[in-house]
Amino acid sequence: MVAELISVGTELLLGNIVNTNAAFLARECAKLGLSLYYQTTVGDNPERLRETVRQALERSDVVILGGGLGPTQDDLTKEITAEVFGQKLKEDAHTRERIQTYFDARGTKNITENNWKQAMVPEEAIVVDNDNGTAPGLILEKDGKIAILLPGPPNELIPMFRKDIYPYLHEKQPETIVSEMVKLCGIGESRAETMISDMIEAQTNPTIATYAKTGEVHLRVTARAESEEAARLLIKPVLKELRVRFGSQIYTTDEHVSLEQAVVDLLKEQELTLTTVESCTGGLLAGRLVNVPGVSEVLKQGFVTYSNKAKRKLVGVKKATLREYGAVSDRTAREMARGAILTTGADAAVAVTGIAGPDGGSVEKPVGLVYIAVAVRGQMYVQECHFTGDRLKIRESSVASALTLLRTGILETAED
Amino acid sequence: MVAELISVGTELLLGNIVNTNAAFLARECAKLGLSLYYQTTVGDNPERLRETVRQALERSDVVILGGGLGPTQDDLTKEITAEVFGQKLKEDAHTRERIQTYFDARGTKNITENNWKQAMVPEEAIVVDNDNGTAPGLILEKDGKIAILLPGPPNELIPMFRKDIYPYLHEKQPETIVSEMVKLCGIGESRAETMISDMIEAQTNPTIATYAKTGEVHLRVTARAESEEAARLLIKPVLKELRVRFGSQIYTTDEHVSLEQAVVDLLKEQELTLTTVESCTGGLLAGRLVNVPGVSEVLKQGFVTYSNKAKRKLVGVKKATLREYGAVSDRTAREMARGAILTTGADAAVAVTGIAGPDGGSVEKPVGLVYIAVAVRGQMYVQECHFTGDRLKIRESSVASALTLLRTGILETAED
Repeated sequence: MVAELISVGTELLLGNIVNTNAAFLARECAKLGLSLYYQTTVGDNPERLRETVRQALERSDVVILGGGLGPTQDDLTKEITAEVFGQKLKEDAHTRERIQTYFDARGTKNITENNWKQAMVPEEAIVVDNDNGTAPGLILEKDGKIAILLPGPPNELIPMFRKDIYPYLHEKQPETIVSEMVKLCGIGESRAETMISDMIEAQTNPTIATYAKTGEVHLRVTARAESEEAARLLIKPVLKELRVRFGSQIYTTDEHVSLEQAVVDLLKEQELTLTTVESCTGGLLAGRLVNVPGVSEVLKQGFVTYSNKAKRKLVGVKKATLREYGAVSDRTAREMARGAILTTGADAAVAVTGIAGPDGGSVEKPVGLVYIAVAVRGQMYVQECHFTGDRLKIRESSVASALTLLRTGILETAED
Repeated sequence: MVAELISVGTELLLGNIVNTNAAFLARECAKLGLSLYYQTTVGDNPERLRETVRQALERSDVVILGGGLGPTQDDLTKEITAEVFGQKLKEDAHTRERIQTYFDARGTKNITENNWKQAMVPEEAIVVDNDNGTAPGLILEKDGKIAILLPGPPNELIPMFRKDIYPYLHEKQPETIVSEMVKLCGIGESRAETMISDMIEAQTNPTIATYAKTGEVHLRVTARAESEEAARLLIKPVLKELRVRFGSQIYTTDEHVSLEQAVVDLLKEQELTLTTVESCTGGLLAGRLVNVPGVSEVLKQGFVTYSNKAKRKLVGVKKATLREYGAVSDRTAREMARGAILTTGADAAVAVTGIAGPDGGSVEKPVGLVYIAVAVRGQMYVQECHFTGDRLKIRESSVASALTLLRTGILETAED
């Protein structure tokens, strides 16, 4: 079945809020195996809304509308959809009662008249209770087409979808979709794609889609089948082939695991503690590692050694090194990592020093030049990087590369 | 002029990412005075993309497309739009050179063939340089209709829009729209709105829109007039009134100045150096300060004291304090700030310690409890905060509050 989303609301068209409902509903549709081809956002304008609903019902089997069900005059989604389905509105006694109960529970004495508008429903609609607000959800069916109307606030829409709409759609949908994520680090998007271009060209079911993140590439493998088991069987050989081609560049096949999580898990598994020493990234690397709950087991401290003096005083970089090679150099990066281990007694250290710009670059040391050093189990890994982009982009690329080099260092020095 | 947004990408239709580009572009259109009636998201499918582009060009003057400009086979936005405009693709020598430079700067020897696809542009298009990636932006014009093609990654799309697309559209728009930003810290959105509810209710031209950011509220005052001068005259009294109502809670009226920039400017102006000591934020605060170019003048170093031992060893928090009051306490925050000044000789210190969750909370010290201490010019400011949200949200709220308290401390101890 083909589904389509329509978000209704001027606040979306003005950019006052980000449309997180669309992302939520899209994920749910993917889980249900519904093909989602379009998402449209439209304002509280009757003509444009009517045209959008009509077009969506022509080209899709299921149209999910979010927003515009509230009590105000602007809220038109129900009225317009009922009109398109050729249904009149009538008062729903059950909903009227729920609205009364809702306000009673909040001690509201004078319920403003416009609230009762929410008890008016299309005459043949399935009414879906709203446990977190006053506007009920509505399902309209006609000639094999379905419209699902949901309240706009995410804290009403999400629980209602999970509780009642998902089971309703699941029943309607014969096919199942399963997708698996393969996350790579230390490789660019175009190179990754070239390495599997034959697989992408030949793909029908499953399909492989690539997504570029800063310093990472994610591959999503998606299969359709009559059952989840059958879909997983289709995915299995593709995952196996991807493992052969990308090897240790795959840091996880778990959708919910980030690169920092994978690195922290690896440190825990290998019983290693870590310290960070950052110059140009200025705390972003530690900050990203601390995203991981339970990181305290491996990360006890970190240093932001932004000035030369801090590099000397906090982690013992030699004055001579800074003078002869400069703060942004292979040598300084090494001494930062080594010094951090000596100062803290950590098992591993990762150091970053570079020129994030916009100023401070020269011909020999241009903006974007970054040195990363990883010291682990008596080994030292150093990488010279040349990044482009603005200051934040260079710093974020540095963090991703530092995590990748740290992961490499841990894996290469691991005892079997 | 009527504008319309089209976001291209399967990852949006699968709900893998939230469409923050749409919100950004919608806000920019509002600033430009463009009426935005539709936002559509469509996948990398030639027929559907073609139909969507055609429909948008029929009903709108300016169609802004984001995504689908990359090097892969999936990326079709340019090809389809060129076709709709009746233009052939030709190689753009300047873009080819930029792509070569981009890879040279990264030391990439073997540029995969598919990258050169990005140098192919519609024959009559205006080519817009991409400073943060390889796919250029493109502007196509025909019969009074405009299509603007932007790369999908926000770190490419946003700077490109600001630098080149905004001025281009501004020129096309007959009425002048002028808007001014007033940025507040240390106040919540609903309180800020209540304080100016009379102004919002009475507004026609200029209008005031409020945007909530983590720990900040931004007010955008927008006026329309025949000339920039006339628009500025309309805005002036509104800005004056906002200054009266919000006073020192206004940290800037410059749209491009972030809170961290305002704080760094203040430190420079007052000739103060700063050090950071972070527990639960784990480097995010220093990382945010280092966003500001030239921060090296005031921030020499920072500490991530994640463990109790690090709090003792690096900044001298007393063992007894940690034992009696715990790591998350007013006392510990104070000692972190004081200790950091003693250790580093900085003029000011800001310390953060708290429980970011999801684990580690208790009845007395729940998740979201954060202490911030600022030591400056012999004064100590401490704030107990209770934040809600997930781990990252709590940490980001802590960073915003730390910057706000630091700003307060500097302002209150300043000699006139």
